[in-house]
Amino acid sequence: MFSKNKIKFIKSLQIKKFRIENKKFLVEGAKSILELISSDYIISELYISEWFYKEHFLLISGRKIQAEIIKENDLISISTFSTNNAGVAVVEMKENKSITVEKDEYAIVLDDIKDPGNLGTIIRIADWYGISKIICSETTADFYNPKVIAASMGSFTRLEKYYCNLEIFLSDVKLPIYGADLLGKDVHHFPFSTGGYLIMGNESVGLSEGLEKFITEKISIPSYGSAESLNVAIATAIICDNLKRKIN
Amino acid sequence: MFSKNKIKFIKSLQIKKFRIENKKFLVEGAKSILELISSDYIISELYISEWFYKEHFLLISGRKIQAEIIKENDLISISTFSTNNAGVAVVEMKENKSITVEKDEYAIVLDDIKDPGNLGTIIRIADWYGISKIICSETTADFYNPKVIAASMGSFTRLEKYYCNLEIFLSDVKLPIYGADLLGKDVHHFPFSTGGYLIMGNESVGLSEGLEKFITEKISIPSYGSAESLNVAIATAIICDNLKRKIN
Repeated sequence: MFSKNKIKFIKSLQIKKFRIENKKFLVEGAKSILELISSDYIISELYISEWFYKEHFLLISGRKIQAEIIKENDLISISTFSTNNAGVAVVEMKENKSITVEKDEYAIVLDDIKDPGNLGTIIRIADWYGISKIICSETTADFYNPKVIAASMGSFTRLEKYYCNLEIFLSDVKLPIYGADLLGKDVHHFPFSTGGYLIMGNESVGLSEGLEKFITEKISIPSYGSAESLNVAIATAIICDNLKRKIN
Repeated sequence: MFSKNKIKFIKSLQIKKFRIENKKFLVEGAKSILELISSDYIISELYISEWFYKEHFLLISGRKIQAEIIKENDLISISTFSTNNAGVAVVEMKENKSITVEKDEYAIVLDDIKDPGNLGTIIRIADWYGISKIICSETTADFYNPKVIAASMGSFTRLEKYYCNLEIFLSDVKLPIYGADLLGKDVHHFPFSTGGYLIMGNESVGLSEGLEKFITEKISIPSYGSAESLNVAIATAIICDNLKRKIN
């Protein structure tokens, strides 16, 4: 049975402060746990339902993971999801290591993306478009927030991320830096380089002024109607689609 | 001051049953209310804060709308938002009228889109791409759900929508019908017609089997990485971007 202390510890990982203190985070639900098991993340605790264990017995035993089978009611009590009949994992965070971007590669730079759902969706989009590196301002939502992990649909397992001061990071960069901006050049006709950085700015105010000096070119998505703007995750997806069609 | 009955009535409109009963819905927050005031929707009650009234006095008085200034605390008590210092409007629903799509025009068809956030985001995307008609299956989230209205960021004011049985609707359609599907033809190289219908399927299961027979061609977004799928609103945006770049 689950001790109160165990429940308290697992639930504490919903809060950033305790994630940092323990260097651990939560992964919840069938899809994310399956991707997690197949990744190089180190699982320190895995709580799963009986059916999930039976259904994925080979995968779980193959990876020699110590799984504890618990009742679905207990799963709900430790999960941030309103329904979760699969499992909850306590996972070791990876170190915040700097990222090197190769000359034929793209990385996404997130400048103060506040909403965890947006960050998780951007991670999933990056993974769809084969972009495996994300550099985040220190003010961007926490990569290990349960809402980020959930929205990424398992794609968090395939991404390198680096949180840092973007001005310092970008001042040392050699490849072109493109910034998404409503007044930029039309992505439909823009000659993207084969590698570089794509900066996406904050949901309300766009790109920080401090980053302007690093930007090689501002780019924008042409509008054919009346909406004033697009959600930042939507804009990331459209730009990635334009970028990849041109350089592949 | 606000009577308990008034608060109860306004809050009841958060629930579909009461929206249908009263033929009214809620619009909340500065951006949405400003777009609402400039639209042809009929506002039956408008509750706004003093600063919002002062800031937008000309617009409000120009449209001869009877606005009641209330305290921000009272606004919160009738709003679904956790913060709302601008206003809440009670608005008359429009009739559910059938839609005619012209031969050089696109309409989006939503087949069982369950998540109100996805529906609202799709409305905003359609508005960005100049698509003003949406046909929804009866199982799709309610257009007048406060979460849909909020996510649409005012774009709901510029869209015609029609909820109906899609099989009956599509059986009478002459223009090409494109269905988004992971196994469809690559949108990067697809010769879209100048007008037609784009069907987007349910978040988990995709397009309904019953609609297959109406589809002229299935289309898909090329993947360059490992994510298994994209969120339906993200996919809608990318397809609209590909469609519009080709026919404009």
